[in-house]
This record gives sequence, C-alpha cells and structure tokens, in this order.
Amino acid sequence: MKKKILFVVMDGLGDRGCDMLDGKTPLEYTRTPNLDEFVARGNSGIMDIIAPGVPPGSDTAHLALLGYDPYEVYTGRGPFEAAGIGLIGKRGDVAFRCNFSTVNDRMEVIDRRAGRIKAPETTELVKALSGIAIDGTEILVKEGTEHRAALILRGEGLDPDITDADPHDLRKVATSKGRTGRADHTAAVVNKFVELSHERMKDHPVNVERRKKGLPEANILLPRGAGSFPDMVPFPEKNDMRAACVAGVGMIKGICGICGLDIASVPEVCTGGLDTDMIKKADTALNLLNDYDFVLMNVKASDVSGHDGKAMEKCSVISRLDEMAGHIMRNMPENIVIVFTADHCTPSEVGDHTGDPVPVTIYTKNMIPDDAVKFSEFGCSRGRIGRIRGCDLLRICMDLANRSEKFGA
Amino acid sequence: MKKKILFVVMDGLGDRGCDMLDGKTPLEYTRTPNLDEFVARGNSGIMDIIAPGVPPGSDTAHLALLGYDPYEVYTGRGPFEAAGIGLIGKRGDVAFRCNFSTVNDRMEVIDRRAGRIKAPETTELVKALSGIAIDGTEILVKEGTEHRAALILRGEGLDPDITDADPHDLRKVATSKGRTGRADHTAAVVNKFVELSHERMKDHPVNVERRKKGLPEANILLPRGAGSFPDMVPFPEKNDMRAACVAGVGMIKGICGICGLDIASVPEVCTGGLDTDMIKKADTALNLLNDYDFVLMNVKASDVSGHDGKAMEKCSVISRLDEMAGHIMRNMPENIVIVFTADHCTPSEVGDHTGDPVPVTIYTKNMIPDDAVKFSEFGCSRGRIGRIRGCDLLRICMDLANRSEKFGA
Repeated sequence: MKKKILFVVMDGLGDRGCDMLDGKTPLEYTRTPNLDEFVARGNSGIMDIIAPGVPPGSDTAHLALLGYDPYEVYTGRGPFEAAGIGLIGKRGDVAFRCNFSTVNDRMEVIDRRAGRIKAPETTELVKALSGIAIDGTEILVKEGTEHRAALILRGEGLDPDITDADPHDLRKVATSKGRTGRADHTAAVVNKFVELSHERMKDHPVNVERRKKGLPEANILLPRGAGSFPDMVPFPEKNDMRAACVAGVGMIKGICGICGLDIASVPEVCTGGLDTDMIKKADTALNLLNDYDFVLMNVKASDVSGHDGKAMEKCSVISRLDEMAGHIMRNMPENIVIVFTADHCTPSEVGDHTGDPVPVTIYTKNMIPDDAVKFSEFGCSRGRIGRIRGCDLLRICMDLANRSEKFGA
Repeated sequence: MKKKILFVVMDGLGDRGCDMLDGKTPLEYTRTPNLDEFVARGNSGIMDIIAPGVPPGSDTAHLALLGYDPYEVYTGRGPFEAAGIGLIGKRGDVAFRCNFSTVNDRMEVIDRRAGRIKAPETTELVKALSGIAIDGTEILVKEGTEHRAALILRGEGLDPDITDADPHDLRKVATSKGRTGRADHTAAVVNKFVELSHERMKDHPVNVERRKKGLPEANILLPRGAGSFPDMVPFPEKNDMRAACVAGVGMIKGICGICGLDIASVPEVCTGGLDTDMIKKADTALNLLNDYDFVLMNVKASDVSGHDGKAMEKCSVISRLDEMAGHIMRNMPENIVIVFTADHCTPSEVGDHTGDPVPVTIYTKNMIPDDAVKFSEFGCSRGRIGRIRGCDLLRICMDLANRSEKFGA
C-alpha cells in the first residue's frame, strides 16, 4: 500500500557550538522530547543538502529536497527571485531581477534604489507597466520588497545571454547587448522596455507626489541577471504524486511553484516570522494530506534567529518546534512517511548560511531501529542513515512509501 | 601477496520490520552465530546497490556488484533477458525478448502467449529456426520459460533503434520500422525473420499435434524490446582476475556471462530454489578458488521467501545460510577476502524489491575492528564501512586483496 509523505523543513535549524550555550548547539541545548521520540522510532542521519561544505541558499536547498539536482536546474537568480515574489514563469520565459531607480535628464542613475521606495507606491507604478507587449513579446512585471521588482519576457525566440541594462553604479543607463547574435532580439526588447518604463513612470502621480516631498523619484525600472526558466519535469509528473507546499515565505512558495507544487493558502497567523503559529501551520499540512500524496511544510522562524545571531531565541523557537512535532505525532495518519530536517544551517555565531550537514530523521511504521536518540547535529549522526545528500532524501522516502520503481528486472 | 576474493550474494536478503516478527527483520529475528563471527572479525556497513532509495533489479544489482555502473552499461531488457536464458551475445549484437504467439490467416494475433506453450514443445520449435541467415545477418534463437524466447541478430551494420514487430495487443502483426535511417536494415531483417518463423512453424509437427488437441498453435515468433549488447570491458580483462560465477538461476548466470565470468556448473542439488543444497554450492565456490581469483556465488532462496511474503520461512532460510557461512569459515583458504551481502532487499511485507540499503560484511585476516557485532540491517550499520554504493564494493575488496593500482605517484 502506498503511503503519504510529509517533509517538515525547519529553516536554518542546524547550528554550531555557541559560546553562550557552553559550546552546545541550540538543538543540543534545548529539551526536545517529541522530536526525540521520532528519532527513537525512526532512522536518523546527517545530510549535505548540496554537497559537503557547500552552503545552500534556501532556493537551491529546496530544489535538492524536492529531488532535483540544483547544479542542473538552477538557472540563476532571475527566474527564482521572480517566482519568489509570485511571478512564476514557464519554460522559454526569460526572467530578471529589477530595481526601481532614479535617473536624471541625461539618463544617468542618481539613486539605484529610488530612496528605497516600497509598496503601496511600487504597486501603483507597476500598474502603469501592465499589458505591455514589445515586438510580439509579452511583458510581466511585479513589485517585490522595497525597491525590488521582477520582470518576465514571454514570447518566441528569447535568449537570456544578454548584458544588464542596470549599470550597477551611478552611471548612464546601459544598453543591453546580446552576447551572441541569437540574443540580440532579447536585448532589443529589454532596451525598449527600459525606455518605456521611463516614459510611463516619469510623470506618474506617485512621482509627482515624491517630487513635492523632495524624495527621489522612481522613474525607471532597471533589469539585471537575465535567466531562463529551467527546463524541469514538474514534481507531480516526475514522481507521480499530487504535491503541495505550506510556507509563509515568498521565496519558498516561489521555488515550490516553479517545481509544480500547489501552494496552499495558510491562515494569517502563519506569518513566516518569529510570531508564526506553528500548530496552525502543522494543521494545514496535515489536512492537505487528505488530498495530496506529498506535502512540504517550511517553518522559517529558526532561520530568522540564526540570521539575527540570537542563540537563546533560537532555543526558544526550537521548544516551539518540538511542541509542533508533538502535535503532528498525535494527529498524523497511520500510513505516513514523515521527515524532520532543515534546508541548511544558519549558525547563530555566523549569522548566515553555512555548509555544515543538517540533521535528518525519517519515521514510518516498523522501521529498523538505530542508535540515535536525540534530534540534534550530533545525535542524528549516530543513526543508520549515515551521511546522505539532499537530493537522495526524496527517493529514500518514496521507497519507504512504496512508491519507487525498480531499475532492471 | 595477492589474495583471492569470494562474494557471497544472498539474494533479496535485506528486509524491513515485520509485524509477525515483533517489528524485527528476519535477520534480526534469527540467530546467526557464524555470520556474526564474520562481522566480529571483519568490517561492516550498509550499501546502496544502485543509489539511495532505488530498488535494483537482480540484473542491475549484479552489474553494480561486479563494479560496473548500471546506468552506463544497462542497455535495456533485451540483451539481459537473452543472456538470462543462456543466449549470451557480444558487442554489436542486437537482442530481443520474444513471445511464441498465435496468428490467424490474416496475420492477426489471437493469442500473444500461444496458450502459454512451454518446453519441450518450444525446444522443438526453436530447432526449426536454427541456422537461419538473412541478408548476411546470423540469427540465434533460444527458448525461455513458458512462451518466452530470446533472439539475437549478429552481423554488420545492425542498429537497435527500431519499433517492435509484436503489436502488444490482439491486432495485426506490426511491421518493424527503423526510427532512424541507420536502423532500416535491422528492421527489414526482423520483418523477414518474423515471416520466416511463421512459414517454418505453422505446419510443424508440434503445431499439428496442438491443433488436434484444440490448443492454440505457436505459429509465429514476435520480437520486442531491441537492445544492443553493451560495450563493456570484460571483467577478467578490466580487473586482471580470472573470474567465475556459481548460481542456480538463469538470469544471474546470464549477467555474469555478459560480464565475461566463467559460469561454473553446479551439482543438481543446487536448484536456485528453496530446496537448494547450500553447502554443496559453497563447496563448488570454494573449489573454484583453486583456479580462479574471483568467485561470485549467488544463493536465491532468501529472495524467494521475500517475494512469497513469508517472513518465518525467510528466517529458516537465514538459519541455513548461517550454517553455510560456518561451513565456509571452516573450509576457506587463508589468503582470502570474503564478502557477505545481498543484491537488494525483498521485504516480506512488500513482496518485491525495495531501495533500502543492504547489509554488507567484508572479512580478511587482521582487519581493523569496528563496533558491529550482528549481521543484520541495523547491526551492520554500526560498522566502520559506513554507507557505500554497490559499485564501490569490488574496488574496496580488490584493494584489501592487494590487487589495486595506485592513482598517481
């Protein structure tokens, strides 16, 4: 009988020994009876999300956890940042990161971030750029956080191998050029779009207002980091599973969206921040298991504490994650394969992602026992999973869920 | 001094926790003092035969154990099924799986399996197809189990990229076509062969007799699944070892034969089934070590119990395997590297191959000790071999046997 699969990804959970925790990691320092119960009944190990010593981004990490080889499908930040703010393209699209910037009459950039303008002003400005088509290429724009935005070009014969229109400096706006003849058309479309963005925004009411207030006007949109949307087989088709994602953070939703997972709407109390309601998020994930074969749930709070360098705060997040694990244990269906792990380490004394392996525990009924008893970086390393790669995890779980296909006869 | 190497492959041995064994695996449930002695004196670990979570076939598994990358050399079922019934081709040959089928006067298939005809009738029919050559291509046919057979084309300019003559359904016999111009010649040979098989079999005495009895006639041979024999360096040449295989099952002999191992004849009591005489088989293997550097011995019985879903029966097979291990310990030469492992798991509650790692123990004189004490899925995971891939095993053993070559200076 085929089982369902639940991945609980505790973002940035892994850590290193912290001075203020007597050399222990937050996971070692904190009582985690429920996670430990999963460890005792399941199998544990440590996992190099990408490869030993390589610090993963949240984007590449989730690609690996979903069974893709990030070195193969990660085509640069453009498409994944676009997806991260909800602009999910399709095969053949070319995507860019953009800044709302300020230029003078000679088209010289005088503020690359237009005074860190943000929504709702950027939302208004984006409306002025909607419905544009240039030489048969459809243009999609969406605002991101602060002065950031994403741009997608959709049409025939596009090629991302072009230079940036963003001069990356206080200089004249650059003219995008194709690095090969095949990309000349795409560069031309970008240049026309940049010009058009200036025309449509320079006297926009938002900027008239900003001028009055003495604020830098957001009078141009400057694209950079062109990338194709990757040519990947969607997750549900590749693995023959209906799949959904529960996450509070845009980038995780974007990655899962690109991979073809359905993005569940979560209650407003699941914020993706420190104040998130983890129990409600877990309930959302458990409910989805009624309709889906595979659910990935991401809890961001542990990563936030890591980035902020707050080891003690991370310990208290871990206590709450452990309560969530207990709630899951009491409410999970019987025929399930469940995984507790992280997408990367964010050590509190580093304040950024590192390439240390993350702890991983896999539980399903009647697992062969192992020596691991504590859910931590050290505790899990004693388990019989040993040391695996991030992209191995899904295949292992599919096999335990009786969903794998034999290779050979 | 160079040592000899013996692989003892206990087919389908690995398992998962079984309800009827109090959640234990058959290996954990059964006393195995002799295997445990090898564990205590050797080094142990767990092994992903292909890759984590990938259920191996017996064919791909043995390729990996013999040190080949199955993703590189496994060219589809045709050649390996042919080899499995003893029709071992060589580089450049194109091989097919075939069915003896029944067609009517309009060449429509009315029984794809000719009433599941079997030997000795199929053996007689195959004789009528021997010694055929078509346009300079030599034709080899051999009967398999029941209505199955294998076909090899041998000659210049063959290409396996053709469509099947078998319509896979109750329809008119298909005309094989080259998917590229280079394969047109091969398709033409196949079509002529199919026609010829009909001519030579339709009034064959076997069919005259079947007609009288009201049984479907086996009046045509329909090939499918064309594949080239892989372009692999034979095992003895690649590893500079005289090598032999001891197995009761055709497919294992076929795979080893393709790899260039000599296939030892075994006493009739080594059946490849539950009733096999394992001690006699072990004696055959030990004797071969006088003349060969490497011997692979496969015992099938454990896999049979797993496929049949009989956990208790598997336990009793394991007791006999342990006695065999004791016999080997008492009779093995001193200068030997010996491996006890499985080609894949066949969990009794699943009844088919899974991608769980298999236990592995390597013994030779004076090994560095480790923590493993019990030959089981869990027990071996505590050993210092850690978690390796199937295709790593041979290299590790060759190194322990002082047969490896330095890479560099």
